[in-house]
Amino acid sequence: MTDDLPALTGPVEVVGAGLIGTSVALVCRRLGLEVVLRDASAENVRTATGLGAGRSATATDRPQLVVVAVPPAAIAGAVVDALHRTDAVVTDVGSVKSAPLAAVAARVSPADLARYVGSHPMAGSERSGPLAASAALFDGRPWAVTPHADADPAAVGLVESLVVECGAAPLRMDPAEHDRAVARISHLPHLAAVLVAGRLAAAPAEHLALSGQGVRDVTRVAASDPALWQQILEANAGAVLDLLGEVRADLDALMAAVSADAGADLVDILARGNAGTAAIPGKHGGPARPTRSVFVSVPDHPGELARLFGDAGEIGVNIEDVHIDHDPGRPVGLTELVVEKGRAEHLLAALESRGWTTHR
Amino acid sequence: MTDDLPALTGPVEVVGAGLIGTSVALVCRRLGLEVVLRDASAENVRTATGLGAGRSATATDRPQLVVVAVPPAAIAGAVVDALHRTDAVVTDVGSVKSAPLAAVAARVSPADLARYVGSHPMAGSERSGPLAASAALFDGRPWAVTPHADADPAAVGLVESLVVECGAAPLRMDPAEHDRAVARISHLPHLAAVLVAGRLAAAPAEHLALSGQGVRDVTRVAASDPALWQQILEANAGAVLDLLGEVRADLDALMAAVSADAGADLVDILARGNAGTAAIPGKHGGPARPTRSVFVSVPDHPGELARLFGDAGEIGVNIEDVHIDHDPGRPVGLTELVVEKGRAEHLLAALESRGWTTHR
Repeated sequence: MTDDLPALTGPVEVVGAGLIGTSVALVCRRLGLEVVLRDASAENVRTATGLGAGRSATATDRPQLVVVAVPPAAIAGAVVDALHRTDAVVTDVGSVKSAPLAAVAARVSPADLARYVGSHPMAGSERSGPLAASAALFDGRPWAVTPHADADPAAVGLVESLVVECGAAPLRMDPAEHDRAVARISHLPHLAAVLVAGRLAAAPAEHLALSGQGVRDVTRVAASDPALWQQILEANAGAVLDLLGEVRADLDALMAAVSADAGADLVDILARGNAGTAAIPGKHGGPARPTRSVFVSVPDHPGELARLFGDAGEIGVNIEDVHIDHDPGRPVGLTELVVEKGRAEHLLAALESRGWTTHR
Repeated sequence: MTDDLPALTGPVEVVGAGLIGTSVALVCRRLGLEVVLRDASAENVRTATGLGAGRSATATDRPQLVVVAVPPAAIAGAVVDALHRTDAVVTDVGSVKSAPLAAVAARVSPADLARYVGSHPMAGSERSGPLAASAALFDGRPWAVTPHADADPAAVGLVESLVVECGAAPLRMDPAEHDRAVARISHLPHLAAVLVAGRLAAAPAEHLALSGQGVRDVTRVAASDPALWQQILEANAGAVLDLLGEVRADLDALMAAVSADAGADLVDILARGNAGTAAIPGKHGGPARPTRSVFVSVPDHPGELARLFGDAGEIGVNIEDVHIDHDPGRPVGLTELVVEKGRAEHLLAALESRGWTTHR
């Protein structure tokens, strides 16, 4: 695919030396490209350059590509500035596309707008800032590329080149469709986690004492930065409200089914949940292969988990996912290994023969 | 604690040779106790006895303790039958306590009722049936013990003995308070996962293609048996509806904040979600220790994950939790290791020195 795309030769200018921007910069430096950095904070630029992510931008730089990686509320302004300041292709990596695009389109000429191609890497970590950056951040992740209708095809190609060089999989999408997509597979799950976690904040301790893996899984993503999420949700308010409206209608139907003891209706709702989990793509983008969980008792100190994985590796069964259950009361952990369904019995028998306490 | 409790000497009768019942039976057999089994399905009894979980019950058995482990809708009837048929202490292991208790109390004398002490092990697996059973199922798990006001203290003590012998941590709770607790930390999260997953079932493929770890975590528990959950939710309808009503009010406030661009209100709601995640107990029941995630690129085939854990074990940093990210497009997995915050840098440096591609 790289043969068909315009070559990314640099210089690359990164505006916003945070987690995403610095990570992109590190990829480009690793490719031997010239990278120049801008950030409202001189400290961030110093840190990023110290990590080998490039050098501070000067007035005479003429970048081939500008990557805008600033907080959501600052994106449109930074894109307009880059389009006016340079003749480069400009992309931004924000998680919402339509609103910034409209704001940019209102402030630049059509000729300048043709050089702007928004995009969105589905990657990140709990941490932020340049110290958290890595050239491996985008490995294997989807990265949406969302050109407007009048974008220059060569500009679109250059952005896709960047995506491929970062090790990510470019997915071409209409900006508004992208916003509906992230509302569904990112913003809605986040808000559901927030609403459930909100019921835990002031809960009696004896309620919380019964917590298991389920509530931990559901609420995990709610431990994110509120200020950042406020910006994201406000920038995608339309698509988010549409989905929340659909969920509220589903919630009303659920409450009606429970209070009327309408068993068939309730089973329908629960079965739709089943179907939804099966719809999520599995590894490597294929359909989800049926998996089975194998549970192993693991004493809770360093080395034991390694021993388990060492044995699993020797046995030769690929581990699709892992969950370590949290066990109040005893220092024994129940580790859940998710494996392909047809391999589970083999793994169980082999682990048992090596002295592990297992159960199905 | 075992010294203060009545001794569990057997025989133990298990009614319902499914996952939970057979697991309890296996624990008791391992203690050298006599165990007798009943099940509506002769096949289940044959399988359980074949696993070494006991023998088929006869009319002349006189159990010390009866453990009722039948599906939710059958619990009350089975408890009443056991109280009439034997002079044993009777417990059930269902996930909702008040409704079965009321149904039992209506059908037995106060003297008989004194021998009934409901309980609920917070344990299980995706699978069901006797073949999935294991004596390790309850290791370190919380197990709620929910006596009614007029239960015989010796009966309560005997049930707590069983819990301790199963390796679980007994938590004494009022039955109605238990039902409110599980509504909050189990049933509500489950329904939130179902509602989010319900929005994925008919979603466009390009939406689903952007899926990341967040939506997988939130919806994971929605892949459960709808018929079982229908019984559970109907048995706990009151507490579930109360909580769903609170969530619906929170959802309305959230939608109002987003549509009115009321940033401060929105941040409040998001921050309450933060606080909720911090309220969940950490390992071994203590307060959650601050953790940090360390990310490592892992080629996706057997042995690589083992090599990573082998190295982590040698480095001597305890892994609190693990997540294996699913990566469409490239056969490289990003594995997330959750470790105690103060140990993260050490682990990162040590992994990097062993050639791993890491990021923060």
